Amino acid sequence: MEKALKKYQETNEKLRALGLAMFLNGWDTATEAPRGSMAHRSGQIGTLSEMTYRLSTDPDYEAAIETLFQHREELDDILHHEIELARKRLVKMKKVPIEEYVAYNRLMAEIYPIYVEAKQTSNYALYKPHLLKVIEFQKKYLGWEKTPELQGYDILLDEYEPEYGTKEYDAFFKTLKERLVPFAKAVSRKKLKYNAAFTKKTFPKEGQREFAKYLQTVMCFDPDRTVIKESEHPFTSGNGCTDVRITNHYHENDLTSAIFSAIHEMGHGLYELQIDPALDETNSGGGVSMAMHESQSRLMENMIGRSEVFWRTHLPKLQELFPKALGKTTLDDFVKHVNRVSRGFIRTEADELTYSIHVMIRYEIEKGILSGRVDVEDLPSVWNKKYKQYLGIVVPDDKRGILQDVHWSQGSFGYFPTYSLGSAYAAQIYHAMAKDVDIDAAIASGTIRPIADWLKEHIHRYGSTKYPKEILRLATGEDFNPNYYVDYLIQKYSKIYGL
Amino acid sequence: MEKALKKYQETNEKLRALGLAMFLNGWDTATEAPRGSMAHRSGQIGTLSEMTYRLSTDPDYEAAIETLFQHREELDDILHHEIELARKRLVKMKKVPIEEYVAYNRLMAEIYPIYVEAKQTSNYALYKPHLLKVIEFQKKYLGWEKTPELQGYDILLDEYEPEYGTKEYDAFFKTLKERLVPFAKAVSRKKLKYNAAFTKKTFPKEGQREFAKYLQTVMCFDPDRTVIKESEHPFTSGNGCTDVRITNHYHENDLTSAIFSAIHEMGHGLYELQIDPALDETNSGGGVSMAMHESQSRLMENMIGRSEVFWRTHLPKLQELFPKALGKTTLDDFVKHVNRVSRGFIRTEADELTYSIHVMIRYEIEKGILSGRVDVEDLPSVWNKKYKQYLGIVVPDDKRGILQDVHWSQGSFGYFPTYSLGSAYAAQIYHAMAKDVDIDAAIASGTIRPIADWLKEHIHRYGSTKYPKEILRLATGEDFNPNYYVDYLIQKYSKIYGL
Repeated sequence: MEKALKKYQETNEKLRALGLAMFLNGWDTATEAPRGSMAHRSGQIGTLSEMTYRLSTDPDYEAAIETLFQHREELDDILHHEIELARKRLVKMKKVPIEEYVAYNRLMAEIYPIYVEAKQTSNYALYKPHLLKVIEFQKKYLGWEKTPELQGYDILLDEYEPEYGTKEYDAFFKTLKERLVPFAKAVSRKKLKYNAAFTKKTFPKEGQREFAKYLQTVMCFDPDRTVIKESEHPFTSGNGCTDVRITNHYHENDLTSAIFSAIHEMGHGLYELQIDPALDETNSGGGVSMAMHESQSRLMENMIGRSEVFWRTHLPKLQELFPKALGKTTLDDFVKHVNRVSRGFIRTEADELTYSIHVMIRYEIEKGILSGRVDVEDLPSVWNKKYKQYLGIVVPDDKRGILQDVHWSQGSFGYFPTYSLGSAYAAQIYHAMAKDVDIDAAIASGTIRPIADWLKEHIHRYGSTKYPKEILRLATGEDFNPNYYVDYLIQKYSKIYGL
Repeated sequence: MEKALKKYQETNEKLRALGLAMFLNGWDTATEAPRGSMAHRSGQIGTLSEMTYRLSTDPDYEAAIETLFQHREELDDILHHEIELARKRLVKMKKVPIEEYVAYNRLMAEIYPIYVEAKQTSNYALYKPHLLKVIEFQKKYLGWEKTPELQGYDILLDEYEPEYGTKEYDAFFKTLKERLVPFAKAVSRKKLKYNAAFTKKTFPKEGQREFAKYLQTVMCFDPDRTVIKESEHPFTSGNGCTDVRITNHYHENDLTSAIFSAIHEMGHGLYELQIDPALDETNSGGGVSMAMHESQSRLMENMIGRSEVFWRTHLPKLQELFPKALGKTTLDDFVKHVNRVSRGFIRTEADELTYSIHVMIRYEIEKGILSGRVDVEDLPSVWNKKYKQYLGIVVPDDKRGILQDVHWSQGSFGYFPTYSLGSAYAAQIYHAMAKDVDIDAAIASGTIRPIADWLKEHIHRYGSTKYPKEILRLATGEDFNPNYYVDYLIQKYSKIYGL
């Protein structure tokens, strides 16, 4: 067993070192690599991926995991959990024949440009045969692990959020459908009145960059362990808790886009920054799951960053940077603007209130596709019908409908629901935190330090040493309950919209 | 043999992929990685280095090289040359026992901070015992390969510039000592008169960055395959001919420092950009040697970049960017300023004329150390004596004397002479190029395209498929001849100084 442990640790060390290479490549590619360098580099990245694949499927490594799994009761808690997950991955991976894996990766590489073209030209017919192939592969994959507990779509859902399957998500979205959908319809019938003149102004990037630096202090985003840069789309990336990076994209005709992107990505980043540093040398570092990660970014972006007290505290700084454009904007104007509700077609542009309705539609469709109840031929009409039913809007074309998201073209089925689950986690976490921390006072103090500290203590420090359900229970004292989320939304938007 | 070739190519592919990781790490570390991330990352880089070491000493890989070497007459020219070099490296490497190698690397990691402290406090006594250990290792190394042709210091010299040893360098520096030293003394007795008021002005970084962008076009530094960024010290780095990166460091109180750094690094970069792209997938990509690389940067920096015609063409742009500070500066003032000679203590700040005298001093000292003729105890006094003898100046302290260069603390003995050899190559290459290209007309045209094209055709495209001596012969039609260099310097500075 000692030998198995040594093999396990040594291989992980190499895999993490290759992980550093992949992180650096991704970061460099998205932020500054020369355009002309991609072809040559992609060959080298292919070689590094192959080295990673060979290492992680090395028979001695697999045998070590198996041995450690047999003796898991003798391991400490962290390693016990890690080995459980490692074996789960192994069992899954071993069921994919290498040729299938290669063929699937080739398909994924081919489909992306086709997806882009189909979206640009709003041409679902062009995309459909390729989507069918992806679904075919996903369905085959479903067959690989027929266990009594986990079937069909559940296998894919579990991959993005462990221990969450259709049972959990059905209950979650049922609550949303019953309580949120009618409320959102009621809100959207009302119009929010405020002076929106400032939204027509121009905001030079220099000032926006300056405000992002200011936010870095507000959000406790430690400058000694972080980088903030620019890229086409904002994202968070990094290499353990000492190297956390976010990007942003500044639009001169839209001030708030980059502000909320920054707060959102800093929420993701703060999670990584506050994980127990000792976990950096294990496979249990990093945030625990997609939804838990999203809970941290959405809590910061929506619950902290769009609050009245946040802007009472920080609008003066923003006005100082853009005196002409914002001089006449009142706190009330600004807060109303960043919390306005509008039923749109595009998920990524949706407001906080309707966002989860977009996600619910995708969840229902994915479930239908993978169970075979929905025909891929009918996807556009199914999509459009649901948008009419739940949001009351008529989708004008497939570009703004079924073709808007890249996820399926990357083979991601089961990813979408984690976005909403994260928002719902956030509401439950916020409710628990409010018992210990005077959140408004913390925000008004200028930095979110007391909030960051609470999150570190109750969520962040664990990294991925436990299942998300367990961390949520430890942090909030109860199992997941979607009513916190709906209650929060109804209370907040009733007040804003005077309902 | 087919099997050997496959093993050789496959291993090289992996080594190059790991090379991408090391390049990205070095670039990221020097330009933007968070301060706090170094400790964690250094462990991962250690793991990647070990993976590289194991791959390059893998017995099957070694056997493949041996097999290919036995059959080298059957290989194409490029592969033939590559295998010769690979085997040479192998023979050398196999003579270093792994424990020695590890111990040496540990010593190198330890000595750096001690060197920095010794330099800061001008304390040679602190540094001496550690330098002794490095020399001891280097001497041991000398014993590893006792061949009739290559002995002692020659082995180290050959590592930085193949086929150059004490015989070649002795002849080179003899010419410099006889012709350059007395000339430099004569020049330094004269004073150059010009209006230097502009050197007291302040030059905001924004304008300097703007001029660097302008220079990118002038120097044909293809924006689709390059990155220009900032770091503590300027350097060139990259990943094949499609990804070439340079950095700069802008000083607001010194306009010309960053300008000539940019031209220098773009000279290095242009070399890499113009290598035959097919060589990127072999081990024969990249510039051929230290001196040949330096010849390209110095040709650009000194022979092109400090010429009168260069500034007749580009000073107006610089004046446009800094109208107040440079409005009254004449072409004559500017050209005189960037070609002024001053005998200083510091090699890296030396002018074009005296630079090689600094290098010659180091060459003589290294030769003395490694032959045992110079005692490490006496190094400061030996150093100071030579500065008095060759440059006529009295070194005030060890910080500005024996402790000024980092090279020995990195185990680099035999590196220094390539700096001067590069300058001398440059003069010989320039002389040959002038027969085919109207260089002044090319510079006056705004971009150096005809010069870049000639260098590509006669030097760059070969990458490292031949020995440097061979490339120099192909490009200039003759063997290396240091008189081109001395002739060029004497002619140029006689004119400037009216001698």
